Amino acid sequence: MTILEALAAAFPAGQVGTGEAELAAYATDQGPVLEHFLPAAVVFAERVEDVQTVMRLATEYGTPVVARGAGTGVSGGAHATEGCLVLSLERMNSILEIHSEDEIARVEAGVVNADLNAAVAEHGLMYAPDPASYRSSTIGGNIATNAGGLRCAKYGVTRESVLALDVVLADGTLIHTGHRTFKGVAGYDLTGLFVGSEGTLGIVVGATVRLRYLPAEVETIAAFFPEFTTAAAGVLAVGKARVQPAIMELLDGNTLRQLDREQGSELRSRGGALLLIQTDGFAAQTEADIIRRELTALGADIRTEDYAEAVRLVELRRHSRGAEVDDDFRVGEDVAVPRSQLVHYIAELQRIAADHGAGLKVVAHAGDGNLHPTFWVGPGQARKVPALNAALDESIDVGLALGGTITGEHGIGQYKVRWLPREQREEVLELQRAIKKLFDPKGLLNPGKALPERVEA
Amino acid sequence: MTILEALAAAFPAGQVGTGEAELAAYATDQGPVLEHFLPAAVVFAERVEDVQTVMRLATEYGTPVVARGAGTGVSGGAHATEGCLVLSLERMNSILEIHSEDEIARVEAGVVNADLNAAVAEHGLMYAPDPASYRSSTIGGNIATNAGGLRCAKYGVTRESVLALDVVLADGTLIHTGHRTFKGVAGYDLTGLFVGSEGTLGIVVGATVRLRYLPAEVETIAAFFPEFTTAAAGVLAVGKARVQPAIMELLDGNTLRQLDREQGSELRSRGGALLLIQTDGFAAQTEADIIRRELTALGADIRTEDYAEAVRLVELRRHSRGAEVDDDFRVGEDVAVPRSQLVHYIAELQRIAADHGAGLKVVAHAGDGNLHPTFWVGPGQARKVPALNAALDESIDVGLALGGTITGEHGIGQYKVRWLPREQREEVLELQRAIKKLFDPKGLLNPGKALPERVEA
Repeated sequence: MTILEALAAAFPAGQVGTGEAELAAYATDQGPVLEHFLPAAVVFAERVEDVQTVMRLATEYGTPVVARGAGTGVSGGAHATEGCLVLSLERMNSILEIHSEDEIARVEAGVVNADLNAAVAEHGLMYAPDPASYRSSTIGGNIATNAGGLRCAKYGVTRESVLALDVVLADGTLIHTGHRTFKGVAGYDLTGLFVGSEGTLGIVVGATVRLRYLPAEVETIAAFFPEFTTAAAGVLAVGKARVQPAIMELLDGNTLRQLDREQGSELRSRGGALLLIQTDGFAAQTEADIIRRELTALGADIRTEDYAEAVRLVELRRHSRGAEVDDDFRVGEDVAVPRSQLVHYIAELQRIAADHGAGLKVVAHAGDGNLHPTFWVGPGQARKVPALNAALDESIDVGLALGGTITGEHGIGQYKVRWLPREQREEVLELQRAIKKLFDPKGLLNPGKALPERVEA
Repeated sequence: MTILEALAAAFPAGQVGTGEAELAAYATDQGPVLEHFLPAAVVFAERVEDVQTVMRLATEYGTPVVARGAGTGVSGGAHATEGCLVLSLERMNSILEIHSEDEIARVEAGVVNADLNAAVAEHGLMYAPDPASYRSSTIGGNIATNAGGLRCAKYGVTRESVLALDVVLADGTLIHTGHRTFKGVAGYDLTGLFVGSEGTLGIVVGATVRLRYLPAEVETIAAFFPEFTTAAAGVLAVGKARVQPAIMELLDGNTLRQLDREQGSELRSRGGALLLIQTDGFAAQTEADIIRRELTALGADIRTEDYAEAVRLVELRRHSRGAEVDDDFRVGEDVAVPRSQLVHYIAELQRIAADHGAGLKVVAHAGDGNLHPTFWVGPGQARKVPALNAALDESIDVGLALGGTITGEHGIGQYKVRWLPREQREEVLELQRAIKKLFDPKGLLNPGKALPERVEA
């Protein structure tokens, strides 16, 4: 019996897809593709036991398994590998419990971030992590990459909202990690180890998440600056005033131009860069007043009559994913640098783009120094791809030299594996390989992702 | 050559202690002692290389090493084990960097929590985790137990403030984990794995920590309630109003009585329980007003003329450690339960104490459901110790049955090892043992702590 026959015997037809179109649809996420494979099959898990069955069969047949939520990742963490099964968790989309007094929710991995937020909002609560894909991405996928979003500087990334996990291990064993309480230090932090591990250590099938209070008030500010560098200085000025915004997004001139083209707006005419800020909570107004004062002193153009537009722009930014998909000629990055290096790094990005003849636009979650520069070369011009790659490589090296990291929130996936040794030393990589081997001795869980292979001498 | 001779050869005399008094002083932390051992020597590391030297020699000689900060732990995580070296990090107390714009600090492991806070306060910043021992405990020790404190519900526990670590592994290798940025998802979360691992996976010698904004305003409320159950209901009422206090401490009648004895106050006459609340930030006043309204509606007695006393009580509570040390007849606990179970758990604790003829007082970090009940039996009456232990065991079982954890912030150490299998299943313990073995194949790092030995069938 082949594994496909075994799957056909174990599951009803509707849970195993082997049609060409389906295989193609589940072959990649939204990250750049280095090498394209079709999976052998897509299995649609509907309950925890289904995931256990898949892992038992995978172990028996030595078949790799790529777990997947909504497939909105941008680092290729859910790209199919040769001969693999893609295990989709999207049908496991039940919110199992919302406990208003405990301020937690228990969900299956396939629950969409926005659906959870809509459900808990009725209790005056929110699930804080808000990646730009939140309207379609799943909590399980968010956990796989330790997803960030716009509100992280104030509310923390996914890790800070995950209290407990249900995880199916490589051999099909189901384990529970963590606790239902906000605090708990019993045993090693296995929960944290699974968060961000991109399906390479186990398959997260359920989570207990901490909820935060839906803010009573929200204030929004759109501050236009003549140029990017002064806008970035505004970020530090807000920090120096010791005010913690919920959202602080920095958009450069090229991003404003693109918005103008798409939206029919005239943002670029207002300035060369835009700082979009939201304060929230009972002091939203007070904090916004301080921020307006600080930014105006720096030369920002802030008009109160633009309030509705500012709110619209933040919403637009909050779900900005989906409009663009990376390809061979256009790649978005995810470097995070210490906040004080924002100005310098952006200047360096501009230099790098010019040096390599690449186009560049930059948006940044400025509150936590996480930038999303997009480099591109004239569409379809294959001879320019090496220049694009050289620009990307250099942007990584410069980010690291400034004390940054190669990925603030998107994950290593498949695409960034080659850069990880630039950030982490061999002994640290070796420790991680040993952990991987411990959890996945046969190397079946999302092989080739998250960690580079050891380079034999 | 013995390891003592090797240490004498490697270090100046002032860095290796073998005198009886010194060995005795470094034999235990402030946790209950199950079995008392003197270390073979105390080594006072003054730099990273010293820690590496100790670990290389320990590996060569097969000698166990118990790392230690200020020795303020209360779970016996720093108790000496047979024939061990105690490795004190208290002399590695340099603040290496405070970066006001990046909002981070880099410290050696032996920096005292309060010293770091005093230094960063000059920049309008704070290091949020504030265990009651913060005046004497070290950042390294706080990391070892993933220490909490009073401000966790709003600002998170130690894990949420640690960005990067320098760790010496069992064989003396120095590694660096994490990143200087607030966000970063490159590789597995080794930083989180070391936090809370109580010196059993490696020895943390340095840390990069995230700082938070020192609040512009602070408001304090002392709300007396007729009885504990209504005070606990007050905790839920504050939550229901979706206001997040910085501090929310619950003190029972026996705790008030004790404070009256020690301080000459008359707190107990005001009520059977006290809810001490602090709000902070730009909305401190607004939030405090909402809280006062909610609690008054529940029957709380809140007098504005008590403001100075309320502030004094919070300060007292903030550094309440040190007055009492556990012994055979008096043991403090650290269970955390889901917030909705606070009332029920406290009623159960009272029943358990009465059933076993034990004394009981309870204080709780009520905002995150973390309770510190102290059980005692008449001092020095050895025949009553079994009753004390039975009460402790039952309090653990009931806490777990309510969805809690055996330790919210103190750690497993040596004392709670026996309870961990009540909370975590064997397959989860086995995973942790495998991780321990990976990092510490010879079992030299703080043996017998944090994890129970495998029970052979």
